[in-house]
Amino acid sequence: MNKKIAVIGAGSWGTALSMVLSDNGYNVSLWSHRKQQAEEIQKQHTNEKYLPGVVLSNSIKGTDRLDEALKDASALLLVVPAKAMRDVLKQIREKLNHPLLFIHGVKGIEPGSFKRMSEVIMEEIPESLRSGIVVLSGPSHAEEVSLRHPTTVAVASPNAQAAKTAQDLFFNHYFRVYTNEDMIGVEIGGALKNIIALGAGMLDGLGYGDNAKAALITRGLAEISRLGTKLGAYPLTFIGLTGMGDLIVTCTSVHSRNWRAGNMLGKGQKLDEVLRSMGMVVEGVRTAEAAHALAERLNIEMPITTAIYQVLFEGKHPKNAVDELMDRDKKDEIAPLTHSLNERMEQKH
Amino acid sequence: MNKKIAVIGAGSWGTALSMVLSDNGYNVSLWSHRKQQAEEIQKQHTNEKYLPGVVLSNSIKGTDRLDEALKDASALLLVVPAKAMRDVLKQIREKLNHPLLFIHGVKGIEPGSFKRMSEVIMEEIPESLRSGIVVLSGPSHAEEVSLRHPTTVAVASPNAQAAKTAQDLFFNHYFRVYTNEDMIGVEIGGALKNIIALGAGMLDGLGYGDNAKAALITRGLAEISRLGTKLGAYPLTFIGLTGMGDLIVTCTSVHSRNWRAGNMLGKGQKLDEVLRSMGMVVEGVRTAEAAHALAERLNIEMPITTAIYQVLFEGKHPKNAVDELMDRDKKDEIAPLTHSLNERMEQKH
Repeated sequence: MNKKIAVIGAGSWGTALSMVLSDNGYNVSLWSHRKQQAEEIQKQHTNEKYLPGVVLSNSIKGTDRLDEALKDASALLLVVPAKAMRDVLKQIREKLNHPLLFIHGVKGIEPGSFKRMSEVIMEEIPESLRSGIVVLSGPSHAEEVSLRHPTTVAVASPNAQAAKTAQDLFFNHYFRVYTNEDMIGVEIGGALKNIIALGAGMLDGLGYGDNAKAALITRGLAEISRLGTKLGAYPLTFIGLTGMGDLIVTCTSVHSRNWRAGNMLGKGQKLDEVLRSMGMVVEGVRTAEAAHALAERLNIEMPITTAIYQVLFEGKHPKNAVDELMDRDKKDEIAPLTHSLNERMEQKH
Repeated sequence: MNKKIAVIGAGSWGTALSMVLSDNGYNVSLWSHRKQQAEEIQKQHTNEKYLPGVVLSNSIKGTDRLDEALKDASALLLVVPAKAMRDVLKQIREKLNHPLLFIHGVKGIEPGSFKRMSEVIMEEIPESLRSGIVVLSGPSHAEEVSLRHPTTVAVASPNAQAAKTAQDLFFNHYFRVYTNEDMIGVEIGGALKNIIALGAGMLDGLGYGDNAKAALITRGLAEISRLGTKLGAYPLTFIGLTGMGDLIVTCTSVHSRNWRAGNMLGKGQKLDEVLRSMGMVVEGVRTAEAAHALAERLNIEMPITTAIYQVLFEGKHPKNAVDELMDRDKKDEIAPLTHSLNERMEQKH
């Protein structure tokens, strides 16, 4: 395999993954659409805004030219905001003249279309120009990866060879990579966890304790599994690194942007104020809207997502939302999941 | 149903669950083997050592006499240390003259025999003297339940009617109870989570971050599922409140005794010193020994349990244990679980 990889998107995650590739002996071309940032990476070997204090190796080259990034690359890692994905892919397609392995590390779904990132790639890049599509996801603060602290992620693709190639690219002694066949489940889990992180922040803002948060995470994952399974995911994926693992990191870390927004909502602030005072995108808000719409369309019970949607968009007080969740009918814990699993196993036969 | 319930064991969890029953209109006889504690509950309506600052309702009566506790009771809730269970049951059997619903809330397995609590109940109480066996378990700090903060638990039994009865006993607006058929899985999950809590403390003691802890919890749960499934549990139980939910609470709370012991080990102290300085039982240590023995006997790969066992009993340095875990062969994430699930589904047919 050619030792050059193009990394598209120089935020904290794209930069940290470039460091992993560089540690593994690859030459990385790290693309930013901002000329100044590309020059900082190229000349000063830093990316101060996104990974302050970190020094990048010489084998990571910064560039703002896509053709330069793609030249002679054997694989492409996309780490751009979900809403920018389609536009970036259109630009890549213009420059691309040989098939590449497409790996993406984006935790979001396309606004409006509610499509997964791999669907967007399939729509924008002709089959002749891609040797496979893989999603890389898992419980991973970029800052910790840049410090080479132990981290585990999954690479998922219906194409087992493509997943294996991605595993070989990234695997090392501090970055443990597991393969997984279920690309749909990994993409859904990564995107929808941000809704639950909003809810975790709300509970903390309301002054509730660990019991309530564990309930939220566990029952939240149960409803993500229900939606995911309906969309074609495999239920056991949600027990893994990209489901439960990523939820734990996002819901128990005060560094999460979604947790912070939820916390302000729990303390009584309105969504407008919260978004204004944060001054940046809170992915979970958009994702809650999308998941709520999908749940209605597919007729799936998602009580936690619905409650969070009502707090965000219908002015419901978070405390009332919690009370209503606790007062619902008595339920069986696992039966609904077992049901969807059985359905899926039967489809396979 | 008779409105009297006997609660056997007046620690913090037994007392908090008595408060739930009392809130639901039941008369509770709360048994302690310590006369002084029983009198404190009966006369002062407090249990200062276990739930400081909490006032108990008049419908909770303290007693140190088992016959008094059992008289006219329609159900029995056992909340005693795992190692004391068999002895307490022998005493109960002597006093029992009518069949009762046996519910237990014990997170442990019997030392030496490695038996689950429901197995011990089945061995000690003749079938004619029990109308069902149910385990109650979930992510629940007793202190938070005593403050009536939102909490969710599962009640599991192969006897669906018994589980339903237990659900009705405890369910209210702050204590949400789910039924579950898988008693084995719920008992295994509750006991084995303490091993992973030890590991979470070790990682924090070593100075590693959220990524490492999420990996530990997720991959730890994967191996608990492998062992549990082999012992007859249903894999999806481990994604629920008593698997993942309880793990989250135990591994992210500094109040957990197992986490604290692990933390000292991670900072370089030896097991002897740790146990001496804590001056109380650390359940995870005994459970690690049991799980390690079971894994060898049943030929199941449990790399995290093995690593923690080696740190505890063979003097391995925690940092070396982490390095070895990260350097193992490349794996698929879900395939081993899918395999055991398929095996189990086939057994059912």
